Amino acid sequence: MPTRKKAAKKQSTSTAEARQTTVQGLLRNLGDSVYTDLDSGRFPSLTLASRSVRNIVYDKKLQQFVLGATTVRKSSGNIKHIRPFTQLVWLAYFAKKLVDEKRTSTLRDVFYSAQAFNVEFQDQAESDELITDLEVLMAMAREGMNIYPEERSAIFGNMRIEYTVPGYEGKIADLSANPDGVMIGPALTTAEFRDTDAEIVLAIEKGGLFTRFTEERVHQKYKAILINTAGQPPRSTRYLIRRLNQELGLPVGILCDADPWGAHIAMVIKSGSANAAHLRELTTPESVWLGVWASDIQKYKLPSDKLTEIDIKRLYELKADPRYTDKMWHDELETFLKYKRKSEQEAFARYGLSYIVDKYLPEKLALMKSA
Amino acid sequence: MPTRKKAAKKQSTSTAEARQTTVQGLLRNLGDSVYTDLDSGRFPSLTLASRSVRNIVYDKKLQQFVLGATTVRKSSGNIKHIRPFTQLVWLAYFAKKLVDEKRTSTLRDVFYSAQAFNVEFQDQAESDELITDLEVLMAMAREGMNIYPEERSAIFGNMRIEYTVPGYEGKIADLSANPDGVMIGPALTTAEFRDTDAEIVLAIEKGGLFTRFTEERVHQKYKAILINTAGQPPRSTRYLIRRLNQELGLPVGILCDADPWGAHIAMVIKSGSANAAHLRELTTPESVWLGVWASDIQKYKLPSDKLTEIDIKRLYELKADPRYTDKMWHDELETFLKYKRKSEQEAFARYGLSYIVDKYLPEKLALMKSA
Repeated sequence: MPTRKKAAKKQSTSTAEARQTTVQGLLRNLGDSVYTDLDSGRFPSLTLASRSVRNIVYDKKLQQFVLGATTVRKSSGNIKHIRPFTQLVWLAYFAKKLVDEKRTSTLRDVFYSAQAFNVEFQDQAESDELITDLEVLMAMAREGMNIYPEERSAIFGNMRIEYTVPGYEGKIADLSANPDGVMIGPALTTAEFRDTDAEIVLAIEKGGLFTRFTEERVHQKYKAILINTAGQPPRSTRYLIRRLNQELGLPVGILCDADPWGAHIAMVIKSGSANAAHLRELTTPESVWLGVWASDIQKYKLPSDKLTEIDIKRLYELKADPRYTDKMWHDELETFLKYKRKSEQEAFARYGLSYIVDKYLPEKLALMKSA
Repeated sequence: MPTRKKAAKKQSTSTAEARQTTVQGLLRNLGDSVYTDLDSGRFPSLTLASRSVRNIVYDKKLQQFVLGATTVRKSSGNIKHIRPFTQLVWLAYFAKKLVDEKRTSTLRDVFYSAQAFNVEFQDQAESDELITDLEVLMAMAREGMNIYPEERSAIFGNMRIEYTVPGYEGKIADLSANPDGVMIGPALTTAEFRDTDAEIVLAIEKGGLFTRFTEERVHQKYKAILINTAGQPPRSTRYLIRRLNQELGLPVGILCDADPWGAHIAMVIKSGSANAAHLRELTTPESVWLGVWASDIQKYKLPSDKLTEIDIKRLYELKADPRYTDKMWHDELETFLKYKRKSEQEAFARYGLSYIVDKYLPEKLALMKSA
């Protein structure tokens, strides 16, 4: 059982309730501004930061993309804007309803729900676009407004959490109870951290290695909370990783395949994506890419494959990306291009199934501590 | 908390231990046959059912594909067979090691592990192929030999299980403790069912609807165990669904999108796939496709999209498939082709988020009971 060594800060109201009140307030303000315009005889309008490529800039201090100073105004007085303006106001109304009723919804549900209100979206791409506009307007991820994606990943480790979703409020769950891990969905993302003896979070790209780690009891040997990101982690998983880092002060290590796609999984956990330049709650700048590095392929004599043309094209894209200017990241990209080889986490199995846990992981964790 | 209304049959040794002993015995027999050949001065050989398309036939009574009478013999005395024969014997050795050590492995791990033994596989496709040969030889799914795929889906409901994987033996978990569901991986697949008040299993194609069902407390309202298949369910999930049906006698209902791909998810849960014609433990012939049917699109006036050319091509393939000869399945394929429309589970959101739980589900469950 987890001990009470580390406990999340206690608050007078719960995190979940505080979050609900904040979101309700922000959405009410948005509605108020529309009514105020109407009462004053003005065409209601909404002003938000532009998401055009030219307005997405990299912020070195925050270590993520942010939106610049350019704004766009959607006015109901402009015939071209009436449709998106109406859609946006309806989305805010629908989000408010979700938050009030403590219900969650997927992006797909939102698209279909609009039809019940005779609000037209041509396709889900259009409703997804407008939901992003609502995020910009609210300066808040849609998950905060109870709108979730489909994808899920999983978590395992010595930690007890308290659920806050309706019907399950106050229910305590022990995240070491199920070795295959608990899915990270709306309930887990909004749960409060109760107690844990964990000293690190390890985010792992693949289910196979995640299982290897639970079988080898990495959560006990290294006091680690294990997260199976299942490829590029869904936003709610990135949000949870950030919460573990910020609320519990836990360092975060990331393990992925040694190829440009694996490296970029680590980068997106650390510095986020250009698509989410308007958000601050999906990045974990302090997280560390533990491997598998390009240089590990040589160092550990791993079985490897030749990089494909697509891999190489991707590496040149990453080299031009402002997130990759840090020397260590840059050097690894160069190493990939020099040897033109890639390798997978499972490749360590050539030294036996437990090698990655017994040899590789401790070496990487030692490097992480000394850095 | 779940009551003890229904409990899995108690056994003197646990299911997991019995399974381990069986697999060890089968693998030892395989090794023995090789040694016996050698001791008698014969080139060792292995004989297994052919997996060629001509030897895959549909068994109406079993409601699944099976392998016919044609066999192939892999002999070390044949220069062309030495390589696959050696690979197969090594795989059996490695599987034995996994089972003895109570460790699991992924298909990818097996491919890399071979390199530690200087056993050559050209690529993972080749090792996957040979693992299937081993399944045929053993008449047993590779999951029984602790070899798992990457993909995962999730389970939620009023049931307590007892884990049997090393390090977690005897640990009891309550599957209603985590509303986002517990991942279905090696640990859950081999867990023993302890107690449950469930009266039905509902397999759901999508995470969004799975969450809707947990939010609307379908597990209590309808005494249901909920499974998020996350698209076409991985084999271990199909194996678990079968176990819930066979060991606990629970009926199984399947909910997917109203398109040829959704229908086929239901069919594969029910009757399996041609690729697994050599196995019996991945099908649930008694399971019922609850919807969303082609005829539901009209009946419930669901928002729908035009079928694409690929959808239509797929429908004609399904019409020619022996698994679809049953009148009800056949009629639904015809209805798809007549109206040329498809629809999704989320489309019910046009009547409000809880409509699918409050109206659609009870109507379908009533049909299921009256059938």
